[in-house]
Amino acid sequence: MQRGRRTNGRAIVAAMGKGERTRLAVLAEATEIAARHGLSGLTIGTLASSAGMSKSGLYAHFGSKEALQLAILDHAREFFIDQVVRPALRAPRGEPRVRALFEHWLTCCRDRMPAGCVYMAAKPEFGDRPGPVRDRLVRDQLDLYDMIGQVFRTGISEGHFRPDADPAQFAQDLEGVLTAFFFAHRLLRDPAVEARARRAFETLLTTVRRSD
Amino acid sequence: MQRGRRTNGRAIVAAMGKGERTRLAVLAEATEIAARHGLSGLTIGTLASSAGMSKSGLYAHFGSKEALQLAILDHAREFFIDQVVRPALRAPRGEPRVRALFEHWLTCCRDRMPAGCVYMAAKPEFGDRPGPVRDRLVRDQLDLYDMIGQVFRTGISEGHFRPDADPAQFAQDLEGVLTAFFFAHRLLRDPAVEARARRAFETLLTTVRRSD
Repeated sequence: MQRGRRTNGRAIVAAMGKGERTRLAVLAEATEIAARHGLSGLTIGTLASSAGMSKSGLYAHFGSKEALQLAILDHAREFFIDQVVRPALRAPRGEPRVRALFEHWLTCCRDRMPAGCVYMAAKPEFGDRPGPVRDRLVRDQLDLYDMIGQVFRTGISEGHFRPDADPAQFAQDLEGVLTAFFFAHRLLRDPAVEARARRAFETLLTTVRRSD
Repeated sequence: MQRGRRTNGRAIVAAMGKGERTRLAVLAEATEIAARHGLSGLTIGTLASSAGMSKSGLYAHFGSKEALQLAILDHAREFFIDQVVRPALRAPRGEPRVRALFEHWLTCCRDRMPAGCVYMAAKPEFGDRPGPVRDRLVRDQLDLYDMIGQVFRTGISEGHFRPDADPAQFAQDLEGVLTAFFFAHRLLRDPAVEARARRAFETLLTTVRRSD
């Protein structure tokens, strides 16, 4: 499956024009820098030197620093959909799909983001800074909760979860388990952190499962 | 109580030397900038101009950028102890104290940090950047879990919580509830986010409470 996806990814990249390939390579680099230093910490100058391009070349691709920040968030969103949402949606509806969502998200927090997570870096920066970047973060936050809620609802309709369980509550709770895991795992490097995240998830399921 | 604390605070400030007062004022300013832009996003130059000091004056107070970053973390730690831990410890042992901890922490996330939280900004930056700042964040994370665990244990010894409930599990779970609240509240400005954080906390208590 991994190999198939990679080959497919290569085929897509091969079919791209040079401009689009450059844009993608620069975005990958920019996303990594932004995950470490924040969206504001990423300067066009730093990115130009780490991507081996001129500043004017970068402006030609992205137009402005804000446009670059928005492109980075779009890139991170696609990455999350690709690594977490799509694989989860391949699991059977109901509890198995909720479990798959948790597993892929946890794997993403643990293994797929050595530099960190752009969202985790951007949220503190733009929480009270109005503008297009904050608006994008708000949309992505709402879409995240909607996506989790939608996956959760398959568990209600399949009869795995209580009909009165609140999908929005589950969404925020699940985000809490994974956010605490993300930060504590990166700081403490202690396997107990993952074990506790898994127990928290099982407890969460217990509270929403049908008792009959 | 608030008034008493303020008067007491003023008396402490009045008894300080001018150098120490300047240091505190600069630290408050620096903490606010770092909460918005991260510890790396805070430059000695930006801080000098916003605090109305010369760069050399700042170096005289803090020695180096890293020393300033560590001083900011110490300042944030003292703030958290003052705003959250001490008030919680004044509540009766057991569940009331755990509730007080939750309430003061939630208030802190919601009202006390208009610019954001230095810890939330610093964790993504230093998660995989070895050095004294990361070491300080690790120590503070472990101390946070120990503090929550200690408060939680008063609930076991008072007979409010199950004797086999895991204090470290509760610590990570509580951090998850409040971290998800902190980010979602700042982005969505939706009262439902706080209501869900409160429900998550009540559910958490239900899972650790003695059933007899």
